[in-house]
Amino acid sequence: MQQRAVETRERLLDTALACFGRQGYEATSVAQVCAEAGLSKGAFYHHFPSKQALFVELLGRWLASIREQLRAIDDRAQTVPEALRTMAGLMRRVFADSRGQLPLVLDFWSQARLDPEVWQKTVTPFRDYRAYFADLIARGVARGTLHPIDPEVGAQLLVSLAVGLVLQGLLDPDGADWGEVAEQAVLGMVSALESGPHGGQT
Amino acid sequence: MQQRAVETRERLLDTALACFGRQGYEATSVAQVCAEAGLSKGAFYHHFPSKQALFVELLGRWLASIREQLRAIDDRAQTVPEALRTMAGLMRRVFADSRGQLPLVLDFWSQARLDPEVWQKTVTPFRDYRAYFADLIARGVARGTLHPIDPEVGAQLLVSLAVGLVLQGLLDPDGADWGEVAEQAVLGMVSALESGPHGGQT
Repeated sequence: MQQRAVETRERLLDTALACFGRQGYEATSVAQVCAEAGLSKGAFYHHFPSKQALFVELLGRWLASIREQLRAIDDRAQTVPEALRTMAGLMRRVFADSRGQLPLVLDFWSQARLDPEVWQKTVTPFRDYRAYFADLIARGVARGTLHPIDPEVGAQLLVSLAVGLVLQGLLDPDGADWGEVAEQAVLGMVSALESGPHGGQT
Repeated sequence: MQQRAVETRERLLDTALACFGRQGYEATSVAQVCAEAGLSKGAFYHHFPSKQALFVELLGRWLASIREQLRAIDDRAQTVPEALRTMAGLMRRVFADSRGQLPLVLDFWSQARLDPEVWQKTVTPFRDYRAYFADLIARGVARGTLHPIDPEVGAQLLVSLAVGLVLQGLLDPDGADWGEVAEQAVLGMVSALESGPHGGQT
């Protein structure tokens, strides 16, 4: 893509994100996104076949960036418990950085149950995250740094906890310091899973 | 209310639940609910000021029934860990009984972020559940049957886990046996929290 095309595409994504965040997915029209971005509908449809396609792209980019950060942590960590503890700190950043994205996730989930295409796009990252954590936990169990739990159950537990924290943080932002709660919750869970000199209850 | 009025009200609630579950909140009209229930719009507006009011009532009834079951468990249990373990079994029943209600919850959350009245109705039960579990955990800590954790953090963790499990079960019903995962997850968390002869890691 030429530089100008890249910029147009980015401008459409950023503007749509702002509109979705402010008023929701349903209430945002392609015409409005174009007007706010100062671009024509022709430009929009050159880059995205539909509002939904742009929506799917926004969510995909956000989830991919979190996944990249998880992998980078994993590459640097010496042990699985160390990786999981560093990931607990990442939760805090996800909350801080994602104020604008979180409402979009909720719209996406709500759309997903009525639209098979959105559903597929929604479920795939959940399954990817679960597979990723199951693999990580299995490594920890194999190396003896984690208690011998079922990696699938451990992964479902971690992902459910993260999803639940995100959702509560979204619905009730003033109900708690959710970044802090998320970090403490994941740290507590890692301590419970960890075996060896640092593990178990003290 | 007279018997006939009670029946009419129940019929409207049941029919609306079926419509919302099938096609979502947005796409369901009062006219459609009335047609499917075989009732007039006059009957509808005699019982509910709006579609949203009926929606709020449906969610409130569901959450109240879960809360009653939690309190009944708490009344019968000898210790806090025993109560929490029995509640883990309740998670399985919530999943089994609530297939029709869960999609409604998602619609409700999505509406909540755009409508202050729905938001208030959504956030209150979350806060009630958190307060309830914080009180339960504080009792366990005071009696020495739970490790001395911060009751607020423990409650946020339990509620987030439950919310995340419900949401994943809703979006990806075939991704796991969510009732089983939920029960195992809560049991695992209780074991980690419990002190005394049954507690800690083994």
